[in-house]
Amino acid sequence: MTSISAIQTDLHRHQEQFPALANKIYFNYGGQGPLPKKAMDAIIQTETHIQQLGPFGNEVGRWIGSYTQTIKQAIASELNAPPETITLTENVTVGCNIPLWGIDWHTGDHLLLSDCEHQGVIAAAKEIGRRFNVEVTTCPLMSTLNEGDPVAVVTENLRPNTRLVILSHVLWNTGQVLPLEKMIEVCRNNNSLVLVDAAQSVGLLPLNLTEVGADFYAFTGHKWWCGPAGVGGLYVKPDALEKLAPTFIGWRGVIKDSQGQPIDLLPDGRRYEVGTSAYSFYAGLLEAIAVHQKWGTAEERYQQICRNSEYLWRKLSALPQIKCLRTSPPESGLISFQFVQHDSQISLKLVQFLETNRIFTRTIAKPDCVRATVHYFTLESEMDELVEQIDKFSQ
Amino acid sequence: MTSISAIQTDLHRHQEQFPALANKIYFNYGGQGPLPKKAMDAIIQTETHIQQLGPFGNEVGRWIGSYTQTIKQAIASELNAPPETITLTENVTVGCNIPLWGIDWHTGDHLLLSDCEHQGVIAAAKEIGRRFNVEVTTCPLMSTLNEGDPVAVVTENLRPNTRLVILSHVLWNTGQVLPLEKMIEVCRNNNSLVLVDAAQSVGLLPLNLTEVGADFYAFTGHKWWCGPAGVGGLYVKPDALEKLAPTFIGWRGVIKDSQGQPIDLLPDGRRYEVGTSAYSFYAGLLEAIAVHQKWGTAEERYQQICRNSEYLWRKLSALPQIKCLRTSPPESGLISFQFVQHDSQISLKLVQFLETNRIFTRTIAKPDCVRATVHYFTLESEMDELVEQIDKFSQ
Repeated sequence: MTSISAIQTDLHRHQEQFPALANKIYFNYGGQGPLPKKAMDAIIQTETHIQQLGPFGNEVGRWIGSYTQTIKQAIASELNAPPETITLTENVTVGCNIPLWGIDWHTGDHLLLSDCEHQGVIAAAKEIGRRFNVEVTTCPLMSTLNEGDPVAVVTENLRPNTRLVILSHVLWNTGQVLPLEKMIEVCRNNNSLVLVDAAQSVGLLPLNLTEVGADFYAFTGHKWWCGPAGVGGLYVKPDALEKLAPTFIGWRGVIKDSQGQPIDLLPDGRRYEVGTSAYSFYAGLLEAIAVHQKWGTAEERYQQICRNSEYLWRKLSALPQIKCLRTSPPESGLISFQFVQHDSQISLKLVQFLETNRIFTRTIAKPDCVRATVHYFTLESEMDELVEQIDKFSQ
Repeated sequence: MTSISAIQTDLHRHQEQFPALANKIYFNYGGQGPLPKKAMDAIIQTETHIQQLGPFGNEVGRWIGSYTQTIKQAIASELNAPPETITLTENVTVGCNIPLWGIDWHTGDHLLLSDCEHQGVIAAAKEIGRRFNVEVTTCPLMSTLNEGDPVAVVTENLRPNTRLVILSHVLWNTGQVLPLEKMIEVCRNNNSLVLVDAAQSVGLLPLNLTEVGADFYAFTGHKWWCGPAGVGGLYVKPDALEKLAPTFIGWRGVIKDSQGQPIDLLPDGRRYEVGTSAYSFYAGLLEAIAVHQKWGTAEERYQQICRNSEYLWRKLSALPQIKCLRTSPPESGLISFQFVQHDSQISLKLVQFLETNRIFTRTIAKPDCVRATVHYFTLESEMDELVEQIDKFSQ
């Protein structure tokens, strides 16, 4: 068995690949992951290559097309899904909007969200409600963090006319990992589609989307995968593709005839892609994923994340002035905590105090708390320092 | 008066700022402009800065917010429009989709397109037709390249129920510059909104959007502005903003309450922005625009583009085997031409022959032709070489 100090030395060396980590102690992986130097180098190299070949011409066009396939294969392999199920998007929110607007809504349909969804998805769902006379309601999953059954909550809130259920695989505010497979099963039995906001799960959890069974799984490359900001994606289950119309449409999604006129949609995830993207960033994400794979399998990385989050959770729980939202060790890399003596500004003041000391965390508004996220390469010494500074702040 | 050889020397030096131009003769500015080295440096510097500050935290968040304002101001200043009318998008096609899907369509409405619109926009318009029972028709502008009146054509094709007219300011296939102000006037008199595809006009024509009067003007930074692929934008006329609902919605477009819940849309172009973007690319576009401004005003650059296109048009017209689509000098940087002895594969064969000789042009399917585009910094020697090679190919 590898000793703890050997693991820490290995992780310390691993961290050296991330320039952002050189001048700070970082706990905002759930906001944005630090870009590995290799990923930045790959972006520069790819941009240079595109300029050298083109930037616009037949050869460079073929090259970008084949490169786009390469990044989709890498993503698909991490998600255990066929490459043709993947659509590349600018971010996770666009990935959520594609299914939201592609469903054939009818007046009186019901759209169910958990009460822990991100503001942008809530706003988009509200607009669906307004445009199509769809009733939008939420179900209380936040309170199932430590007790209760999220599957039962969703079951109770399904209606005969529930067309779509929106759930986050890992709740961005409390860090709870939802029992997604079981939740999807009850939705499927109700003929309801399921859209998963995977902002906090892709790059954190080992995944097998084919087994999970979600109809739509929207993710981003720039959080737990540490890719460049501006590349995300959407998985659409093979049998959901024909039912989901593209809304924003562009040249990337269509088949043309000899006159250059669009005559059909491409048969795979490309049909939801619109136009020109930051193609060189695909190379950055590809390289970022490779950095993680080189360290360990998705399962090994997840186990190390859980070791780290348990370590931090235990140390925070031991502080008399701090209360972790979880009453048992977290199942994800997100650790949310509050002050026992609560006042409305204290979370923000702590986050600002910590940032002044080059320690990066964030506030969450609902529930009002501070969120620290740990990756597999977070060091014990970093967590020790965080806890020490929180203790100092609270004195 | 500056001598022709002095201008050519100046342009030759100017070209040295664009690494892509070092190993080829480039006539695909209408496809994608070459990225200036300074723009690439700005991207690297900005990405490095974001990593150093964050990548996720309060300080870096404020910095990105203020930087986003800076690029909008630079764009707005080039377009002569207020910065709050600008939405940043991934590309021009997304910019066209925002108004297409944000209009409150009613069954039986009419959507009119010119017959020279880009395939992606046509496909999106067709989907609007299918979803909302809107009739989509086209009007024949292609045939007005040398004679006839595009204003009259649009006027004849307007109906009492025409809700939206889609026009390109500069037609991407023939290079025709439409008399946009007059066309918008007849549409406004018919209570029809106008969406302009500005893919080929922004960075080519001197613009004053406030005077032009279009309701929606969608553009990209990566063609005539030579910015990085993946940043474009949309202008929404101030009085059209309240009428145009956002469709794809995310955290970037909404106002939150103290609980982090979305309660309203932001009051300006940000309401159509969705989520995380390739922020460092904003710096690349900003720098690319600055490179052009340093050379000359928008008017001076346009005059030089016209001098170049007239030069190339005259030389091509002098070749007995070539027929330019225009019978008089072009008003834009796009020159489209055909072979007098037409066969279906000859355009493609020429483009491939030229690319093999490091000269970059492209085919257009409708009308079947070859398109060469010239920027203000295109050299006479480059145009001479293009014509010589076409002549050689045709022997």
